Amino acid sequence: MKRAACSPIWQGAPRIRDFMLRLLQHRLDPASRLVRLMCAEYGVQLELEDIKPWSRDPALLEINPAATGCILVDAGEGPVVGVLGAVHAIEERYSPTAVAGLFPAQARDRAEMWRLLEWVLVKLNDEVTRYIIEEKIVKRDRRGASIEPGVLRVAKANLAEHLLYFNWLFATRHWIAGDTMTLADFALAAHLSCLDYMGDVAWDNSAETRQWYARIKSRPAFRTLLNDRIPGMPAAAGYAELRYLPGKRQPADLSLLLTQLGRLLSLRGWHKFLADNRQMAPFTAAEKEWFITNWLKGQALRALDVIGVGYGHA
Amino acid sequence: MKRAACSPIWQGAPRIRDFMLRLLQHRLDPASRLVRLMCAEYGVQLELEDIKPWSRDPALLEINPAATGCILVDAGEGPVVGVLGAVHAIEERYSPTAVAGLFPAQARDRAEMWRLLEWVLVKLNDEVTRYIIEEKIVKRDRRGASIEPGVLRVAKANLAEHLLYFNWLFATRHWIAGDTMTLADFALAAHLSCLDYMGDVAWDNSAETRQWYARIKSRPAFRTLLNDRIPGMPAAAGYAELRYLPGKRQPADLSLLLTQLGRLLSLRGWHKFLADNRQMAPFTAAEKEWFITNWLKGQALRALDVIGVGYGHA
Repeated sequence: MKRAACSPIWQGAPRIRDFMLRLLQHRLDPASRLVRLMCAEYGVQLELEDIKPWSRDPALLEINPAATGCILVDAGEGPVVGVLGAVHAIEERYSPTAVAGLFPAQARDRAEMWRLLEWVLVKLNDEVTRYIIEEKIVKRDRRGASIEPGVLRVAKANLAEHLLYFNWLFATRHWIAGDTMTLADFALAAHLSCLDYMGDVAWDNSAETRQWYARIKSRPAFRTLLNDRIPGMPAAAGYAELRYLPGKRQPADLSLLLTQLGRLLSLRGWHKFLADNRQMAPFTAAEKEWFITNWLKGQALRALDVIGVGYGHA
Repeated sequence: MKRAACSPIWQGAPRIRDFMLRLLQHRLDPASRLVRLMCAEYGVQLELEDIKPWSRDPALLEINPAATGCILVDAGEGPVVGVLGAVHAIEERYSPTAVAGLFPAQARDRAEMWRLLEWVLVKLNDEVTRYIIEEKIVKRDRRGASIEPGVLRVAKANLAEHLLYFNWLFATRHWIAGDTMTLADFALAAHLSCLDYMGDVAWDNSAETRQWYARIKSRPAFRTLLNDRIPGMPAAAGYAELRYLPGKRQPADLSLLLTQLGRLLSLRGWHKFLADNRQMAPFTAAEKEWFITNWLKGQALRALDVIGVGYGHA
C-alpha cells in the first residue's frame, strides 16, 4: 500500500493536533474525497493510505465487511467505517471553534444541508457516480472485464438531469444549501471532481454549476484533491499548475513560459491551468502588450481559461 | 390524502410537546418507518399523511424534487426532507434527557452506529429493499407494469447474504451496534418490517436475527408500525391482536376465544398473535388444563407461537 501525506496548506487554520488521522481510501472514491476535503478545511492533518476496496483484501474485510473504502483510523480510537461515521467523527472531534464550520448553525439550514448531502451521497451516487466508477475504475482491475457503453450512457444521461437541478439551485443561491458553504458543497464537489477527472462532466451546458465549482475549487482545502493522479489514468480534465517565484523576469520569459504552457496543455489534451500569482512581479508594458496581442487573441497556443490571482478558477 | 394519527402509548415517556409534527410518508417506506419508530421511542406525537412519492405529485415535487417520501413538517420550521435530515432534526429537537437516547454517548459506539445505519440505509436498501418495494408496491400502481421475477430473485438472494451478516452480529452482541439499542437497530427493524410485511424474510434460516427482531418488536414504540395495513395488500406475516379486558370469565370463554383465534389465523394464512395480558385475570385450574391439553398440544387449531405477557414476541 502506497502512502502519501497531505497537510493543511493555508494560513490561519486551527492548530494541527498532535495525533495523526489516517484514511484508508481510493483516490477516486467520492466518499473518501469528502472526508479529505473536510479534514483539509478544518486543518486536520490526514495521512492517506491507498487501497482498492473492490479487491476484497481479507484484512480490509475484517475492518469493513461492506468492502468499501473511506475508513478513518484515529490513533486513540477504533476505526470509523463509512462516510456517515467519518463526517460525524470529524465534526465532533475536530470542528474548529475559531472559524465557521461546515454544519450550519441554524436548524433550518442544517436540514437543507442534510437534504442535499443525502441527495449527493445517495441519489447522485446511485444514479451516476457508482456506475462510472465501476465501469472505468473497478473494471480496469478485473481481468477480462469490459466496459459496458450502455451503462455509461445511462449514467451520463442521469448526470445531465442532476446538473440541471444543481444549475437551478446555484441560480438561486450562492452555495448548494443556501448562502453559506456547507458539507453538502464538499460532498457535491467530491463527486464532481471524480467525474471530472474521468472526463464525464458536460461543463459547457452547466454554467451555474461550473461557476460554483470554480469557486469551491479555489478554496485551499481543494488542493488535496487537485494533486491526485491515478496511476495509468491521466486526468481527462487535467490542468497545468503554474507557480511564479519571486524575482525579475527577462523580456522574453513570459511569452516563452506561456507558449510552453500552451504546448503542454495541447499535448495532454487539456485546456486549463491553475496559477498562483502571489509571488509574481506585475506585468511590464511589453509583457502586457504581448499578452493581449498573442495570448488572449489566440495567436499563441493557449488554454481556454486564463485565470490568475490566488488559486483561481481552473 | 388519508391521515392517521399515532401517539406514544406507554407510561413514563417524556412529555408530549405542544406542537404537532407531521410526516409525509408511504406506509412501507423504510426511511419513514425509521422516523416513526424514533418519534414513538422519544414520545413525540407524529401525525401521518400517506403519500405515494412515485406519483410525482407537483405539490410534493416542489417540496422534494427527489420524489421520495419521508418529509417531516414541523409547525414552526420549514419541511425537513429525507431521512438524514429527519433523524438529525428529531435528535436535536426532541431527544429526551430523562431516558437513554438512540445515539450512544461514547464516540466509538456512535461510530459503530453510523457504520451500521449506513449499511442499512444505503447497502441493504440498495441491494434489497428498493427492488422489492419497486416490484411489489410501486408497480401495483403503474398501469401495465408487471413484476419481474428475476429482480425479486436477486433481491431475495442478496437479502439472504445480509441476514447471514446480521446473524453473525447478533450472535456476538445484544443489539446491532453493541450492547445498547441504537438508531441502527430501528433502521434495520424498519427495513425488515417492510420486507416481512411483503413476506420476503426467510426467518427460518435466521435464528439470531429473528430473536433480535422479536425483542425489538416488543418495544412499545413498535406498535405504530404493527397496526399498519396497506389497502389491498394484507400483510404476508400478519398476526391477530388479542386484548384482554378486566373482568371475570365464564368457564368456556377461554377455550372459545382461543379456538376462534386459531380459526382467524388459519383463515388469513397467519400463524402469530400478539397478546396484551396485563388486564387478564389469571388462568383457573380448569383453563390451565384445557390450555395445556388442547392448545399447546395442538388439539385445538392454534398459532405456532404463543406469546403472552406484555407486548410479547410475535
